Amino acid sequence: MTAPISERLDDPESAREEGRRKMDWAREHMPILASLREDFTEGQPFADEVIGMAMHVEAKTAVLAELLAEGGAEVAITGCNPLSTHDDVSAALDAHGNVTSYAERGVDDDAYYAAMEAVIEHEPTITVDDGMDLIAAIHEDYPELIDTIVGGCEETTTGVHRLRAMDDDGALEYPVFAVNDTPMKRLFDNVHGTGESALASIAMTTNLSYAGKTVVVGGYGDCGRGVAKKAAGQNARVIVTEVDARRALEAHMEGYEVMPMHEAAKEGDVFVTTTGNRDVITAEDFEVMQDGVLLANAGHFDVEIDLVALEEMAAEVTEPREGIEAYVMPDGRELNVLAEGRLVNLATPVALGHPVEVMDQSFGVQAVCVRELVESGEAYDAGVHDVPDALDREVAEIKLDAEGVAFDDLSEAQAEYMGSWQHGT
Amino acid sequence: MTAPISERLDDPESAREEGRRKMDWAREHMPILASLREDFTEGQPFADEVIGMAMHVEAKTAVLAELLAEGGAEVAITGCNPLSTHDDVSAALDAHGNVTSYAERGVDDDAYYAAMEAVIEHEPTITVDDGMDLIAAIHEDYPELIDTIVGGCEETTTGVHRLRAMDDDGALEYPVFAVNDTPMKRLFDNVHGTGESALASIAMTTNLSYAGKTVVVGGYGDCGRGVAKKAAGQNARVIVTEVDARRALEAHMEGYEVMPMHEAAKEGDVFVTTTGNRDVITAEDFEVMQDGVLLANAGHFDVEIDLVALEEMAAEVTEPREGIEAYVMPDGRELNVLAEGRLVNLATPVALGHPVEVMDQSFGVQAVCVRELVESGEAYDAGVHDVPDALDREVAEIKLDAEGVAFDDLSEAQAEYMGSWQHGT
Amino acid sequence: MTAPISERLDDPESAREEGRRKMDWAREHMPILASLREDFTEGQPFADEVIGMAMHVEAKTAVLAELLAEGGAEVAITGCNPLSTHDDVSAALDAHGNVTSYAERGVDDDAYYAAMEAVIEHEPTITVDDGMDLIAAIHEDYPELIDTIVGGCEETTTGVHRLRAMDDDGALEYPVFAVNDTPMKRLFDNVHGTGESALASIAMTTNLSYAGKTVVVGGYGDCGRGVAKKAAGQNARVIVTEVDARRALEAHMEGYEVMPMHEAAKEGDVFVTTTGNRDVITAEDFEVMQDGVLLANAGHFDVEIDLVALEEMAAEVTEPREGIEAYVMPDGRELNVLAEGRLVNLATPVALGHPVEVMDQSFGVQAVCVRELVESGEAYDAGVHDVPDALDREVAEIKLDAEGVAFDDLSEAQAEYMGSWQHGT
Amino acid sequence: MTAPISERLDDPESAREEGRRKMDWAREHMPILASLREDFTEGQPFADEVIGMAMHVEAKTAVLAELLAEGGAEVAITGCNPLSTHDDVSAALDAHGNVTSYAERGVDDDAYYAAMEAVIEHEPTITVDDGMDLIAAIHEDYPELIDTIVGGCEETTTGVHRLRAMDDDGALEYPVFAVNDTPMKRLFDNVHGTGESALASIAMTTNLSYAGKTVVVGGYGDCGRGVAKKAAGQNARVIVTEVDARRALEAHMEGYEVMPMHEAAKEGDVFVTTTGNRDVITAEDFEVMQDGVLLANAGHFDVEIDLVALEEMAAEVTEPREGIEAYVMPDGRELNVLAEGRLVNLATPVALGHPVEVMDQSFGVQAVCVRELVESGEAYDAGVHDVPDALDREVAEIKLDAEGVAFDDLSEAQAEYMGSWQHGT
Repeated sequence: MTAPISERLDDPESAREEGRRKMDWAREHMPILASLREDFTEGQPFADEVIGMAMHVEAKTAVLAELLAEGGAEVAITGCNPLSTHDDVSAALDAHGNVTSYAERGVDDDAYYAAMEAVIEHEPTITVDDGMDLIAAIHEDYPELIDTIVGGCEETTTGVHRLRAMDDDGALEYPVFAVNDTPMKRLFDNVHGTGESALASIAMTTNLSYAGKTVVVGGYGDCGRGVAKKAAGQNARVIVTEVDARRALEAHMEGYEVMPMHEAAKEGDVFVTTTGNRDVITAEDFEVMQDGVLLANAGHFDVEIDLVALEEMAAEVTEPREGIEAYVMPDGRELNVLAEGRLVNLATPVALGHPVEVMDQSFGVQAVCVRELVESGEAYDAGVHDVPDALDREVAEIKLDAEGVAFDDLSEAQAEYMGSWQHGT
Repeated sequence: MTAPISERLDDPESAREEGRRKMDWAREHMPILASLREDFTEGQPFADEVIGMAMHVEAKTAVLAELLAEGGAEVAITGCNPLSTHDDVSAALDAHGNVTSYAERGVDDDAYYAAMEAVIEHEPTITVDDGMDLIAAIHEDYPELIDTIVGGCEETTTGVHRLRAMDDDGALEYPVFAVNDTPMKRLFDNVHGTGESALASIAMTTNLSYAGKTVVVGGYGDCGRGVAKKAAGQNARVIVTEVDARRALEAHMEGYEVMPMHEAAKEGDVFVTTTGNRDVITAEDFEVMQDGVLLANAGHFDVEIDLVALEEMAAEVTEPREGIEAYVMPDGRELNVLAEGRLVNLATPVALGHPVEVMDQSFGVQAVCVRELVESGEAYDAGVHDVPDALDREVAEIKLDAEGVAFDDLSEAQAEYMGSWQHGT
Repeated sequence: MTAPISERLDDPESAREEGRRKMDWAREHMPILASLREDFTEGQPFADEVIGMAMHVEAKTAVLAELLAEGGAEVAITGCNPLSTHDDVSAALDAHGNVTSYAERGVDDDAYYAAMEAVIEHEPTITVDDGMDLIAAIHEDYPELIDTIVGGCEETTTGVHRLRAMDDDGALEYPVFAVNDTPMKRLFDNVHGTGESALASIAMTTNLSYAGKTVVVGGYGDCGRGVAKKAAGQNARVIVTEVDARRALEAHMEGYEVMPMHEAAKEGDVFVTTTGNRDVITAEDFEVMQDGVLLANAGHFDVEIDLVALEEMAAEVTEPREGIEAYVMPDGRELNVLAEGRLVNLATPVALGHPVEVMDQSFGVQAVCVRELVESGEAYDAGVHDVPDALDREVAEIKLDAEGVAFDDLSEAQAEYMGSWQHGT
Repeated sequence: MTAPISERLDDPESAREEGRRKMDWAREHMPILASLREDFTEGQPFADEVIGMAMHVEAKTAVLAELLAEGGAEVAITGCNPLSTHDDVSAALDAHGNVTSYAERGVDDDAYYAAMEAVIEHEPTITVDDGMDLIAAIHEDYPELIDTIVGGCEETTTGVHRLRAMDDDGALEYPVFAVNDTPMKRLFDNVHGTGESALASIAMTTNLSYAGKTVVVGGYGDCGRGVAKKAAGQNARVIVTEVDARRALEAHMEGYEVMPMHEAAKEGDVFVTTTGNRDVITAEDFEVMQDGVLLANAGHFDVEIDLVALEEMAAEVTEPREGIEAYVMPDGRELNVLAEGRLVNLATPVALGHPVEVMDQSFGVQAVCVRELVESGEAYDAGVHDVPDALDREVAEIKLDAEGVAFDDLSEAQAEYMGSWQHGT
């Protein structure tokens, strides 16, 4: 049986202190959660709930977990990626009266799933996932809990994708909000959050720059367009690869070059995959890459770059810098893989994950979705649900208010005009 | 009874020749319509149809009308804005065996609606609108025709908006494709087409530049973000106004300043409204504007800038350049209104409307939608319909093919991966 | 003997009125000249001077000529390019008591040079050139005037280039300010002025757009980087060609692709030459271009695109639109040349030349340079001179003041710090 | 007497190994130095020289020092900033037969200057500085060495600034190349190097993002415009402050807002100073800043933000994250200062200094300048010298060649054209 993190650390006290310091920094830059905290502390909306969470356990997520706990919930949490946990934050969170944290960095697969089971043993009434591992485990191994689960929330593109497939198979047995698909998440977290943090993580891991480099972006979804835009904004030449005609055309019309990966492989200096799919860069691409290229993944799973093939092709693997493995090809070319092909904005030694402010937006949606499940969960059938637009807008308004940004009101005459169809040219 | 344009011109022959030359230039830069022309000429899909059109009658639209005619249809067309018609193009189109054109530039309201009636007298089986005037006229004055109408297509944001209102009122009695809402239209025509052409039209009407100017963009829908992006791309400082919190936040996160119009009014050098709504700039805004500002509208109707109020406030109105009216305020400030507040990329003396290539995309969608109505119109209920995604993608693929842009195929393993949900971290 | 324009027009009165209206619009958007006008009208610094000018005679230049006349000078002016003169502006200028204008649009070479001689017959004491034709003519045919000439000003890159060559040959016999080389001219007029106006002129002549297009920019001097930046800002993919390694590297580091013209020729949709040199695009490039490309020149002379070779290669030349000649190759490809390869922001039918505001800056420098020649001309030896930095800064300060832009003062402590070298790490 | 670093470390062997690994990564991404290494190893141009260096002792500089040693020089090196030294790199460098390194991180002022003296005791014949501390120390305390010194090189804006002041005072007694002022250094290192690395360092120290933030850039020199451009490229709103009218105007024309710092202080979320001057942000600015702002410096010395005043104003100073000090104002606002106001791209815990590639360019110029001093040092008088253009171009060509970027050659006809002045319109 997996024990909470505090029982596993040598010096939980100092870990807690350091974790607390990290959380405090994040809290201060999360105005949306701050605004909700006032409401939740007062109203205690989650008083009767057990919330199970499987997310990246670092400072920002911890602020969300703590917010839910402060709103009255019993919270049990573990990681959603063995490399993304900060043990000190995990410990600080575990120190909270209403929270138990099982997350520990660098655990093996067995320990990873055991921690997930430990969370499930709390018998959650609500689940909050980043990658749907918790939902999958409950459906596979704890179906008996499903009856008492009000619903869940899913944070990522990849998780929602898998949930929809599960839903299409008729296998999803409780309602889940596709938090990832809300405008507030998609437009900001993916575009700005992934875009900026992936590139900064690569830059600060390699000490290389983007000006004059050719950056190949695999995929032109929200993450891909964020990476492309921010790379171009740092004076890189950007090449986009896609499997979807319309997205390919969008990238083309934006001014980027679009070509198949096998062509792009010959041109690129830096490669960033963002598709949520596997095999974006494969053996035939490695064959034609230039010496010294950087290969990084910004998608949820480490399957976008085919490292199995790369390892087979390589004569040797060295570690030229922390967080970088150089696959030395028989012909002497070195292909540098960052963070073992895992999420590059989470898994390099310097990585801090998504920026605080974008997580504030994304977690603001999570928090109001959890509130919605508590208030009206019975109104939702089993299956994937779009987040109600009113909730998403509520978060946008809180944010603008916090930033001091004012905007116009629709006048009555305008509302009437938008609703009418009789006026002519 | 309104006569076709050819019967109203002094020298229809030379008009036709000039119109033909304009159409030929457009045709050569519309690869999507060229690709469809091959299919339609061969297959004659519209052989039994009468297509009524109310659109901007200039070279590009003419290429669409001609394409439908070449596909076998009898086409009757008139303008959708009294100022946007090119008489020579109208004449060239009218010269086509299958086309009758009633469009004439600068006609008054009575003549405008009489021309629309002349189109309706052809008893169209399909309607193609830009602003839904034709649909409105049929519903109001020719309800007896509705039975034999297969369906319609609507080109603009504004038209779709009004159609949805009409549909909500239960008043729309045949199916209409919201062409405006397709990704292929929305993402390219609005963003790139309106963005580039509105700004170029302003620049070439005023001889002024954007560098260092403050450009206030009213509205952050697709048109607004196009104008904002392209103005920033020409080194303007951009301020955005909005009535929607989430769009306001999007603009803010893009790096633009967001503020109420009344605040922006004090800062702006150039104002471009793009909302599709009325009263975006009003009397209280005129009061605080700087001397010499430029006021332009890129939305469908001339109601976004409150010219009625402006005229009342002004001591005098002069015409400092063709296409510009200077409203001289009692305090001496001059507010320069372009193109009488009508669509600035259509109605200034130098304006050419949307760029050819973006209209190629948009009209490509129109053409396949008309084909869809002919082939499967009965499958659609009365009301506004989204364009089926497959049609939109078909157009994207034609375009990429024409541009010589290759992209990746989804492998079987990838398709399988995207459809599965069992694999873990 | 060439007569002033007023004597050559059929209806000089109405021409004058229209020209005056154009000049008034420009005047209102030229705050720097407005500020200098107050000083010059008061002080009459040019009371004893005859100023000969050979410049593009359109509204903005006319405001400069008028300003000099209002400062007391007798001004004689003609065009510096047969296609850039606006006859109405020429007439309006000629109507001024202190100004005689000989500029007429579309004259042949003989008439062009005869007009220049007519200006010289006024026996200027100061010359103001755009392309050094006046200086060249004086040195070649009127050397006897040189003794009484205080000095000159030259506006363009090309003119300064030729003057420096002349100076190196020891052939320049009076002092000339290289106005073109001042920061105030170079950084704004070339980058922003040429960049924006060249692209807007192309767009409004062709009705084509930049999004998704490949724009090839010949040369990465100030004009070239303006065109490149603004084209990228309208979502074009930009390719730069250069003959200078450092500029090539600059373009590369900015994120643009750099390649030889012969490679770029295969990729480009739109070509804009900006080098000031000849033969930038030649026969071997025409051979490999795509059907439908646009060829435009933004450099001073029409020698950058080798039209002689192109004419020889073409099977036929047609005019698909006003301002465009299509060279039809034997293999059917059409290469579209804008404005006969002349300055595309001046010589297309819709072209208005440089934007008003950037000419205000550039002409502000001209005006203070003329003032400097009058006040201290004897202090300058024969030869090309950089504009004294203080004059250039004076114009910058006037402009910021007019725009209402405030900035910081250097404190005494800061000035002391910048001047010291003893403080350490 | 200061001992070399190897004698001061507990475990010099493992430090050396780690330092070597860092140097190897840098070496592989410095193609210009690689190209020069071939020449220098072969030709041994520095065989009789002692080169004294005071620079940031981290991997990239180490590659330069090693290159000079491989070219035959005896090299003695120390740091130019107590916080920028990497002890492991210092140790790896010290292990080279021709190099002695005295640099150690975090030493106090006395030890810092003692290390500089230790370098001088080697009796350098050439000095290479980053901030002119070595030149200053020699002039003040070791004037007897000046006779045998061939010359020096200075890397930074600040150093060159101080050297020119010294030269103006007649106090500089040997020739020094202003490496900082070369196009190859200025255009790339400052703009791209400082711009990208300063922003990435801030992002990775704070976990904050730029989208939607207001970034205030103090100074619009090359560093400032790099920071501004890259911040805007990451969707920040950018405000620029300046003391120079022309630079202020440049920033304004680029589309940035320009205002005095005291106004900007109220608006900014992030402040980056880049002026090379003191007191850019002062007490009156701290008074009006928002809670939670980030204050960072990208100029050479830690005098741009007045920390003395800030400390006096603060009620308390805490460390919310490593590398950040929060000055808590009496009214509760927290102003977060990064890296104690030292160079933010060098002195935060995650900072890696300038990107490798831009240092390759900058150090390429250093290397050819040292070669020039050895070959022709006697040709240069005492004083500050611009780097000969041919040397700078040589480095540009090596770089383009290494990047595989081809460009055009000037044809004979073109060269002739550029050199002539007789051809006309």
